[in-house]
Amino acid sequence: MSRYPTTVSIREVGPRDGLQNEAIVPVAARVALIDALSGTGLARIEAVSFVSPTAIPPMAGAAEVMAAIERRPGVAYGALVPNLRGARDAIAAAVDEIEVVVSASETHNLRNVRQTVAESLGGIADVVALARPAGVAVEGIVSTAFGCPYEGDVAPERVAQIAGHLIDAGCTTLGFGDTTGMATPTRVEALLDALVTARVDLGCVGLHFHDTRGTALANVLAGLERGIARYDASIGGLGGCPYAPGASGNVVTEDLVHMLHDMGIATGVDLDRLIACAEQAQRLVERELPSAMLHAGPRTRLATR
Amino acid sequence: MSRYPTTVSIREVGPRDGLQNEAIVPVAARVALIDALSGTGLARIEAVSFVSPTAIPPMAGAAEVMAAIERRPGVAYGALVPNLRGARDAIAAAVDEIEVVVSASETHNLRNVRQTVAESLGGIADVVALARPAGVAVEGIVSTAFGCPYEGDVAPERVAQIAGHLIDAGCTTLGFGDTTGMATPTRVEALLDALVTARVDLGCVGLHFHDTRGTALANVLAGLERGIARYDASIGGLGGCPYAPGASGNVVTEDLVHMLHDMGIATGVDLDRLIACAEQAQRLVERELPSAMLHAGPRTRLATR
Repeated sequence: MSRYPTTVSIREVGPRDGLQNEAIVPVAARVALIDALSGTGLARIEAVSFVSPTAIPPMAGAAEVMAAIERRPGVAYGALVPNLRGARDAIAAAVDEIEVVVSASETHNLRNVRQTVAESLGGIADVVALARPAGVAVEGIVSTAFGCPYEGDVAPERVAQIAGHLIDAGCTTLGFGDTTGMATPTRVEALLDALVTARVDLGCVGLHFHDTRGTALANVLAGLERGIARYDASIGGLGGCPYAPGASGNVVTEDLVHMLHDMGIATGVDLDRLIACAEQAQRLVERELPSAMLHAGPRTRLATR
Repeated sequence: MSRYPTTVSIREVGPRDGLQNEAIVPVAARVALIDALSGTGLARIEAVSFVSPTAIPPMAGAAEVMAAIERRPGVAYGALVPNLRGARDAIAAAVDEIEVVVSASETHNLRNVRQTVAESLGGIADVVALARPAGVAVEGIVSTAFGCPYEGDVAPERVAQIAGHLIDAGCTTLGFGDTTGMATPTRVEALLDALVTARVDLGCVGLHFHDTRGTALANVLAGLERGIARYDASIGGLGGCPYAPGASGNVVTEDLVHMLHDMGIATGVDLDRLIACAEQAQRLVERELPSAMLHAGPRTRLATR
């Protein structure tokens, strides 16, 4: 018997975490991509973020995107929000899930949102207090959970401590972000150990890897070994745009699904449709995406000569 | 305590398996690359193959390469040979190790060397009988060990059976090649299980992954989980040249070393020197190599602003 989960839930983050780090894509094309993605069997899609369009121009028009997409039954559409104002906009746009973020690194949090970690946690509590009574789930995400580009290593105990605060604040689920691709398998194991020690329920844990240093699928495997069944991924590997210095794409959705399916792990996603979405994403950004499926195709696609 | 090996031995295959699938690189530049690689701490380098220069033009001049390289003490220089004639040439060139290959797939073996698997095994026995008395080690490599581009899945029991024949023939060590990148972690586990069942000593097993479908480092992790401590890798990820249809590079040496070191696994290799070699390799092929270390650098390289 395999020690891996039999089923994995993938959250598609290409329309937000991916496109945020690409040249601007028009609202209509973002809507079309989200609608194509929701037709693949993906049950969770991070669709937009309600942030300042001045600060992050590719994310402008979040309300328009949410209003225009087809709301496919069974699919949860999520939005990242930086503050209470964003949360109000997200709830008004009828998102199913709100994501809030705090960095495990003080330096990164200060540079990213000009707040201390404690200030961010306070703001998150306010968002949760608004969202949960409105029937909206809230995922609390700890970024730089496997390392900070400014501070270097981040203690797993520190990450677990912040996770505890997020649970206490009322977050429904937790996410741990490898913001700049500094995770390796033993760091994944160390964090999960620290979460267990801190009595965090691993059933509510999702992992979010960037493939900056090639380790994303190995990190997923380390998570699977410990029974983690929720992963973020980005269609085509969107998000590694040269216009955004230091940015690098999330683990590629179709490559992740391909590996999981071959390992006998169900995702509910149709790989062929997913690859068609990756082709669509590649046309949007007009550059070659890092997707192995786009280059080589699935292992089941045999040579014809 | 970690369940991983404390030390891993990496065989650098870029000068052979990598450059074989690239545009032709002059002998002097190949010699310079091998000499740079032997200065990184790598203890095993697949330097050349003694094959027909008509069949594989980039590998022409194997004897010249072997004669011109600096033979650094402690480094084993290997050559792939397709037959007895190649083995004689390799021994005359004073290689430390000969590699012989047979495919686990009849179709692949027939297409690759126009022999049945049984015929190839017979030829390998002849090579071993020549090489071992001459004091040259012989690694028997089973290619398409995780899948065949023509036949599809390959039964692990079949691979283990061939491995048994290679041991019986007198091979010193065994290699298992994921020739076209069809391996995933559970297939690695299944093969290692089959080898154990067939009473093959896992201590003599090396794994050779191509990153065609993004799973190479995850596959390495699956091998590490089972205690496998020998891996092939290619500097810069050489070998994915568009001129060779279907070719795709091996797992990237510097990305593998980076992950292993961060996991507390020693390799004896200097990562900075290795990255310098990857830059050298990239200049040779005049295209962007898939190395994450070349793009992003090690995780220890912190942001300066």
